[in-house]
Order: sequence, then C-alpha cells, then structure tokens
Amino acid sequence: MTENREAPTREGVEAAARRIAGWVTRTPLLPFEWRGRRLWAKAECLQQGGAFKLRGATNRLLQLTDAEKRHGVVAFSSGNHARGVAIAARRLGIAATIVMPSDAPVVKREATAAEGAAIVLYDRMNEDRIAIAGRISQETGAIVVPSFDDVDIVEGQGTVGIEIGEQLGREPPLVVVPCGGGGLSSGIALALPGSRVVPVEPAAWDDMARSLERGEIVPVGADAPPTRLDALQTPVVSPYTFGVLHARGVRGLAVSDVEAFAAMRFAFDSLRLVVEPGGAAALAAVLADKVADVPEGSVVVLSGGNVDPGFYASVLNGSAA
Amino acid sequence: MTENREAPTREGVEAAARRIAGWVTRTPLLPFEWRGRRLWAKAECLQQGGAFKLRGATNRLLQLTDAEKRHGVVAFSSGNHARGVAIAARRLGIAATIVMPSDAPVVKREATAAEGAAIVLYDRMNEDRIAIAGRISQETGAIVVPSFDDVDIVEGQGTVGIEIGEQLGREPPLVVVPCGGGGLSSGIALALPGSRVVPVEPAAWDDMARSLERGEIVPVGADAPPTRLDALQTPVVSPYTFGVLHARGVRGLAVSDVEAFAAMRFAFDSLRLVVEPGGAAALAAVLADKVADVPEGSVVVLSGGNVDPGFYASVLNGSAA
Repeated sequence: MTENREAPTREGVEAAARRIAGWVTRTPLLPFEWRGRRLWAKAECLQQGGAFKLRGATNRLLQLTDAEKRHGVVAFSSGNHARGVAIAARRLGIAATIVMPSDAPVVKREATAAEGAAIVLYDRMNEDRIAIAGRISQETGAIVVPSFDDVDIVEGQGTVGIEIGEQLGREPPLVVVPCGGGGLSSGIALALPGSRVVPVEPAAWDDMARSLERGEIVPVGADAPPTRLDALQTPVVSPYTFGVLHARGVRGLAVSDVEAFAAMRFAFDSLRLVVEPGGAAALAAVLADKVADVPEGSVVVLSGGNVDPGFYASVLNGSAA
Repeated sequence: MTENREAPTREGVEAAARRIAGWVTRTPLLPFEWRGRRLWAKAECLQQGGAFKLRGATNRLLQLTDAEKRHGVVAFSSGNHARGVAIAARRLGIAATIVMPSDAPVVKREATAAEGAAIVLYDRMNEDRIAIAGRISQETGAIVVPSFDDVDIVEGQGTVGIEIGEQLGREPPLVVVPCGGGGLSSGIALALPGSRVVPVEPAAWDDMARSLERGEIVPVGADAPPTRLDALQTPVVSPYTFGVLHARGVRGLAVSDVEAFAAMRFAFDSLRLVVEPGGAAALAAVLADKVADVPEGSVVVLSGGNVDPGFYASVLNGSAA
C-alpha cells in the first residue's frame, strides 16, 4: 500500500509534478482582456481527457505496487475523474471499474467506456456510490481511487499550480479555481503559497465556502436543487482539502447556472475554448464581478471541457436552462 | 519603405520569429489519437485575435518606419487578417482602415471594429477590394498590408512552423495546413524544410492545388459556388506563396463544407477547441482519409476559430448547411 501520509504538502506537489511529467499535457496559459486588464486563463479543458483529473489519477496510479496493479482500481465519479482514472489505468495496464451516476452527461459516460473501463451505474438519489465502490473493492481487491479525498490525488491536481508559476515566472496575485471537493483548489494553494486562492462552487452546492466560513466541514444541504455544474456537485468536502484551504484563511464564492453559461459563451467568443459549466465557474465569478479585487495578471482556471454538444449548442443559442 | 525583397526565405522566417516573440501567443501543440496513431494539433485558433494572422501583421507593422506609421495602414480581408492587422495596429499606435466584404461573418466584423479599426464594407460580387484599398492608400498615404501577397507577411505566418519544430524537438514527417492565399502553407514550408507540407483548400476554391499541378498560377473559376470556409475564399494565390510551394514539389487537396463541419465537431469532442470551418480544413482532410500516408507524429494546423455562435451551434446540432 502507498504510505498513508497525513496531509498533502508543497513538497508532495513538486514531487508529483516530476512524477507525471510526460504523462500529461502542459496546458497553455492564455491571455485575455477584461476591463482593460490582462488576465490569464489556465486551460485545463485542453488536458488529455478534457479535465485536470488526469493529473491526480496518474500521480496515484504511478505509485501503486505491482501487486496492487494486478487487482485493478475502482473509482466513483460523475465523469471527469472517471475518465482521468480510465485513461491512466489503460496506459499502465490496470483494469478499472468506474461507478457513475445514471444521470452523468452522456459524453462523459461514453468517453470513459471508450478507454476500456467497466462502468457501473447507480441512482444518485437512492444509492450510495461510496458503498458500491467499497463493495467492488471488497469483492475484487481493487484499490479505491477517490476523486479528491486522498493525499496523492490532491498533490497531483496541484501540479496545475506548479505550471502556472513556471509559465508566469512568478506567483500570480490571485488564482480563481472551480471547486467541487476541493482537490484542485487545495493543490493549487499548496503549489502557490504566495497567491490568493478563491474557490468557486455552484449556488447551493457551496459547502466549501460555508465550511471555510464556519471553520468546520459542513455538507451540502439535503434540499440543494440540481445544478448544471455537474462536475462540481459533491455532497461534502474532505479533511485534506478543507484543511489546506482553512489553514490559508481562504474564502469561497458561488455562481449560478446562468452565470456559468455566460462564462462558457465568453470562453467561446474570446478564447475559442470549449468549457463545461463546472469548468467555467471561476471565470463566471470574475465576469459577474463576484471576486473582490482582480488585479492585472490574475489567473482563472478553466478546469474542464466535457459537455454534450446539444447542450453546448443551447448555451450558445441562449436557450439553455 | 521596407526593402522590397524578391522572395520569402527560411532566414526571414527565423528573423520574424525573433521579431514578434512577446507580441504573439506561442500556441500549444496538442496530442490527439486517430486510428491508433498519435498526431498533433497546432492550435492557432488560440492565437490572439483567434487566428494565425496576428503573426504576419505584427511582423509587417513592426518594420514600418515612423513616417509610414503616421500615415496609417489599410488592409482588405474577409475577417481574420482584418482582425490581426487591427490588433497589431492598435498596439503600435497606428491608424487602421479595413476593407471587408459585406457578407463577412458578423463576429469577425464586430471584433475588428472593437480593436478601433475603421471598417469599409464592399460588395464581394460587384466591387474590387484591391481597387478600394488602393484608392484609400492614394488618398491618405496609408500603407497597404496584403493578407498573403507580401514577403513579410509570409515570413510572419511561417513562425507557426518554427514553433512546431521547437515544440516537437524535430521536424514532423507531415504538416497539413489550411490554405487560402497560401501565406501560412508557404511560410511553414520554409520553416520546416524537411517536412512534407500538404495545403488544404475548399472544394472548387482549390486554385493552389490546381496551380501546383499545372506548374503555373490558375485563378479560382468564375463559377465557384459559395463556401462556408470563408477564411480560405481567395480568388488567386500569390507568386510568393505559389513559388515556395512549387519549388518544394507540394501537392494540394480540397475538402467539402460537410467534411469541414465533421472536423469542427471532432475538435469540439476530442480537443475542446472552437475551430471555424476554414480553420478545420486540414483536420477535415485527414479525418476524411484524403491525405495519403499520415505517419505517427504528423501535425495538423487548426488555423482559426472565429465563428458565429449560432452557426457553430448548427454544426454541433447537425443542421448546418
């Protein structure tokens, strides 16, 4: 088994960056203008598999022992983590089983299956994906690869921050990051200790923001309505991710579906990038003027771009709901 | 006046690369899989202004004398060159007038006006844009900046090839390039003397391919039907661009609108890139199996991504015509 370390660290993120170099794309940092200021978009939607998730998955799977690899891996995810694990597993010759909600975007389900992973669907409302993955793990010995509640995963996602620092030649004053379980936000915070980090969640699913405000982990309310930002739809954050952001005094924000759609449209018009609703959350917060003080040279992370074409067309047409 | 050199050269392309570094984005070379082979997409749709055109425009305008700059510049273009010239001119404090066809995509017209350029519209069927630009130049002393029939422009566009070589660490076996007037194709051919270069044009607008076959410049037929690949809709190529490709023994190809739409959809699904019809021509030729022998490590240039959102939605929905 991989050593069970207590918390992700900056050194761990740096080691992950060395470990996964050559396995992932160094995604571009693209300039754009907003209110006369030059900002930067870190285009993780251009990552292989369409989201940053390949980073953490690769960092985790590269550290499995040969015995562990033979038992395979199992992961639960609404899509992007699933696809990241499936790609990393295929490359390393590891069997992968993915537990996905039956309402996950078709494009994410098909892409995961295309990587050769076995898909197990579950009902998001009535079944417990963690229990299903645990049962598969018990039956087959497969290693569970969590989507964010894991030191290696957080450190792998943090390599986005290492690249930002290298590409700019300095730490940016501000990095705005889409936030589901907080793996990407906390990893970037570790990688860029001098930057202000602002995690952005979907409205009513802003449990990281409320947890940071309260100083303890608070789950999403049982009455949270559906959100189109499916990639960020996590019911509760992790002590690992919360711990990093809490120690940094971070504060979070939330955006609406409509604000995310406007950001997707901006990315289409101004950056020629296909961004999914959740991947556009950070940009949405900036464009909707929700982030206090966005200095010249700030970075906005576009974390994913896996979106059904029909839905994307409806966003461009202004008919998305 | 800039020295009137006889032909673009590899040394000129290298000098252009040094000259415009810092003014343009070093666009990413993104991997994708096709029939089990790893190919690379050079994503010039992520260039500032949404197309490679900023390269040539910047290379040309940086070489104007102070006296020339005071008289301003005039360019004719259906859109991408217009926008590139407008951006470069604004940055250098030069007044720009752009002569555009009245049927140019709205997104390109608005983007060009947003850069502060004066727009003069003309009727593509009944007016001569070269004559209009010439009249403006005579009246105001403005320097005409051609979209491809110019040594500095060709050498500027060729910097795409310099970057490809640097990013791969070698010359690729094959580079497939969208071709209108041939500035990008010939510039890349100069930059990568060891690579096979294949220019791809719209069906019936494949005058470069026919010229290369005949060994002399042949214009587009008067009966050529409209094409959705508006960026590649040039009536005749230039001795500069034809000369380079002819000397290399290059052969060209043509793709249909429908083949270009399929490539736009592939870029959406597999690369998360917004590509316009003309910008997708080279990818279309590969996907439609029109390029003989596409070895592992070949490069496909995606030359632009300025497309009206409503039309793009119709491509995703399969209703584009």
